[in-house]
Amino acid sequence: MHAHAKKFLVCAGTLLALSSLVVQAQARKKLKVPAAPVAAAEARVDNTDSLALRKIFDEALLRGESYDNLSYLTGTIGPRLSGSPQAQQAVEWGKATMEKAGFDRVYLQEVMVPHWVRGGKERGEIIGNKDKGIRVAVCALGGSVGTGGKLKAGVVEVHSLDEVRKLPDAAVKGKFVFYNRPFDDALIEPGTAYGRAGDQRRSGAIEAAKRGAVGALVRSLTSARDDNPHTGAMAYDAAVTKVPGAALSTIAADKLSQLLKANPDLQFELEMACTTLPDEKSYNVVGEIKGSKFPQEIITVGGHLDSWDLAQGAHDDGTGCVQGIEALRLLRATGFKPERTVRAVLFMNEENGTRGGNEYARLAGQNKETHLAAIESDGGGFTPRGFNVEADPATVANIARWAPLFKPYHAADITVGHAGTDIEPLQAAVHPKALIGYDCDSQRYFDIHHTAADTFDKVNRRELELGGASMASLIYLLSKYGL
Amino acid sequence: MHAHAKKFLVCAGTLLALSSLVVQAQARKKLKVPAAPVAAAEARVDNTDSLALRKIFDEALLRGESYDNLSYLTGTIGPRLSGSPQAQQAVEWGKATMEKAGFDRVYLQEVMVPHWVRGGKERGEIIGNKDKGIRVAVCALGGSVGTGGKLKAGVVEVHSLDEVRKLPDAAVKGKFVFYNRPFDDALIEPGTAYGRAGDQRRSGAIEAAKRGAVGALVRSLTSARDDNPHTGAMAYDAAVTKVPGAALSTIAADKLSQLLKANPDLQFELEMACTTLPDEKSYNVVGEIKGSKFPQEIITVGGHLDSWDLAQGAHDDGTGCVQGIEALRLLRATGFKPERTVRAVLFMNEENGTRGGNEYARLAGQNKETHLAAIESDGGGFTPRGFNVEADPATVANIARWAPLFKPYHAADITVGHAGTDIEPLQAAVHPKALIGYDCDSQRYFDIHHTAADTFDKVNRRELELGGASMASLIYLLSKYGL
Repeated sequence: MHAHAKKFLVCAGTLLALSSLVVQAQARKKLKVPAAPVAAAEARVDNTDSLALRKIFDEALLRGESYDNLSYLTGTIGPRLSGSPQAQQAVEWGKATMEKAGFDRVYLQEVMVPHWVRGGKERGEIIGNKDKGIRVAVCALGGSVGTGGKLKAGVVEVHSLDEVRKLPDAAVKGKFVFYNRPFDDALIEPGTAYGRAGDQRRSGAIEAAKRGAVGALVRSLTSARDDNPHTGAMAYDAAVTKVPGAALSTIAADKLSQLLKANPDLQFELEMACTTLPDEKSYNVVGEIKGSKFPQEIITVGGHLDSWDLAQGAHDDGTGCVQGIEALRLLRATGFKPERTVRAVLFMNEENGTRGGNEYARLAGQNKETHLAAIESDGGGFTPRGFNVEADPATVANIARWAPLFKPYHAADITVGHAGTDIEPLQAAVHPKALIGYDCDSQRYFDIHHTAADTFDKVNRRELELGGASMASLIYLLSKYGL
Repeated sequence: MHAHAKKFLVCAGTLLALSSLVVQAQARKKLKVPAAPVAAAEARVDNTDSLALRKIFDEALLRGESYDNLSYLTGTIGPRLSGSPQAQQAVEWGKATMEKAGFDRVYLQEVMVPHWVRGGKERGEIIGNKDKGIRVAVCALGGSVGTGGKLKAGVVEVHSLDEVRKLPDAAVKGKFVFYNRPFDDALIEPGTAYGRAGDQRRSGAIEAAKRGAVGALVRSLTSARDDNPHTGAMAYDAAVTKVPGAALSTIAADKLSQLLKANPDLQFELEMACTTLPDEKSYNVVGEIKGSKFPQEIITVGGHLDSWDLAQGAHDDGTGCVQGIEALRLLRATGFKPERTVRAVLFMNEENGTRGGNEYARLAGQNKETHLAAIESDGGGFTPRGFNVEADPATVANIARWAPLFKPYHAADITVGHAGTDIEPLQAAVHPKALIGYDCDSQRYFDIHHTAADTFDKVNRRELELGGASMASLIYLLSKYGL
């Protein structure tokens, strides 16, 4: 490829939006209206803002610290499921990293978290008529009970929870229910496919147990066809027997389905030593830069510090953590003094409980804090697209008016959509004007999500840095103009 | 991450554009004006188009063939530099693949190509005062002469061609000139950084030789800091002595620079056995679907079949080849009969000569063909952004009016910019109305470009398929509406 610089954008809509912003800026200048900070809707940008964003991106790309931070969090600390020693190391690392970055205040929020452990050896085997079984890749779903030694039973394949409810007793009793509904690959967003297939993992064991099955085998929630099983949280119902839940790699699921067609009486042998220990004390990590003019108004940014135990938790959600810290560092390093208080939060226990997110919201409510907006990064550290916003239409439109400032960084898509699991509890507690999810390229995320393959080498330095800079830029604007 | 479906886009500009398109479609319906194909500027979309695009994307994502094709091209055939046996295998593979896809006509265009060979062993060593040298990662630049055994000399570090011109004789004569200007990481497009650093690789050996240097050592053209040297074409001037040109990995370059600071008299020993053999006969591969209404108007789509010899040429440019073939297959598989003639072209020799691109244009001119547009994919097979267009402003605006149709696929950025090296010669030969470059996420491309790391595993199936579908969609619109 012989690459050349791009010259200019010609999207008519964008040019229109840009020119109207310029007109506003000029009008303000002419009338000597102060440019910022004004709460009125028209004061959404002035002619220093594009330079401010450029400064933030320069700092991120030339002197960024997030990539090295991620290397330490994922490589030196590694997997950090709630309640594990590594989760505690991650808390200490987060606090030390924020202190080193020189934030005004760094503190912990204590929270009790679940403590589930995989307990070593996991084994899945398809046993047909021949003597020799076929080993396939499995892993326990998070929260599952163990099998208590080897658990061997027949298998019934289904494609939905509803299908289980309708099975005749004889078809399901004493068997494994094998949920094998794949991702819908026609969906442009793999996250949507994940949402639609997710009930199998979440509720599969409950529905199986209700019908007398001995366990649930769930096709991994991914479009990838490989041998990495994807773990993730599963639920139990207090009124229903707890049976083990395991994920099969997509290759294992295809294999099992194929062999079942040839031999519906085959058996599956599962062995998992996982168990739930008593809750452990843990922490959210919070770092603050105090607002210079409206310190009582808070903007939160962050991701979750815990990760599944199978891998390094690089894209889920090491990237969100280091980007949250970096966003504040970028503001400080470029000399901006935010008008509102900005908080980086590393939430504990998103993966199997959201206890940290709930506690952050509870404390915010208890302390009668005013929250302007909260930004969460938990969709990986890939190339930015923009932001998903949960807010009333007028607030969404206000944020969308900043889109042209993000266009040079390909981060200008302002969409209405889910913002994030950890900031969601803030809504009921303190009613922030907007919950905002960092939105990035989504095609690769679910290939590695919750697997042993979610490692540091999957993260591209520049993509990570562009994301942190996008968040810092949005905070700069939110802090300056409010909502 | 708990992902949810996105609900709708709120970018004001986009909504405006969309609603005006709807108004047009409604107006046409009301007045019973035929929807297509009409050359008039207002007939840019009708209400079947968004469904047509959806059908194309469904076919690509659910039954796509490009990923398996790429697996064969990169894995079974592998590196395929012009003139190599693998390049010939790739020609045969391309022809067979197009024939199997059932295009109306598949043929070869003969072209003589350069035949440069690396010739095995390459070695670079920094030799200081101590007995033992330090081996560093080097590779010959494409087209370089060999060293004729070991070539040992002092080193002078520079950051530009101009600096070489200004060096005192004693500082450069008999030495290696070491070009060490890095990528400018502040640039959002790594392609722009590539363009700005590229003169060192292209012309470094010429400028060095003019001053009596024995060779050129060039920092690899990348932002990545690793030990993969990046090859790529270098030039010679018939009036200037040919001296060897080698790329150093960025780690090697940093090491050499650091050691030079401590010891300006250190020496570098280079050994390269590369040489240029006589030109070889080779081919462009062309597959056509004949236009149903305007068969004389041609739309070209494709990439280059040759690749550098160090790796599999996956992103550069296996992806462009399989996407070009896939674009035509998608049109056929979804039952569209293009009104204009559509051609998939696998160009030979983009990397070190553009002989194939030149020959394709020469034949088009000789045959007095009418070319409506040409689309090239040579920036990797990453997630789509949209298209770079080289055309007059009115034509660019016409294409930009289709942007809303691409918005659901995140492929709606229509920018003015360089379209592609292989289609560029068409401009002078037959004046197509538009040259169009497929534009995709650009952050990872130059990490692996021209190195041993440009392998199949770096390509994501869905990203590749979304790209092929984007190109097919644009061809569908170009074929239906013209320009």
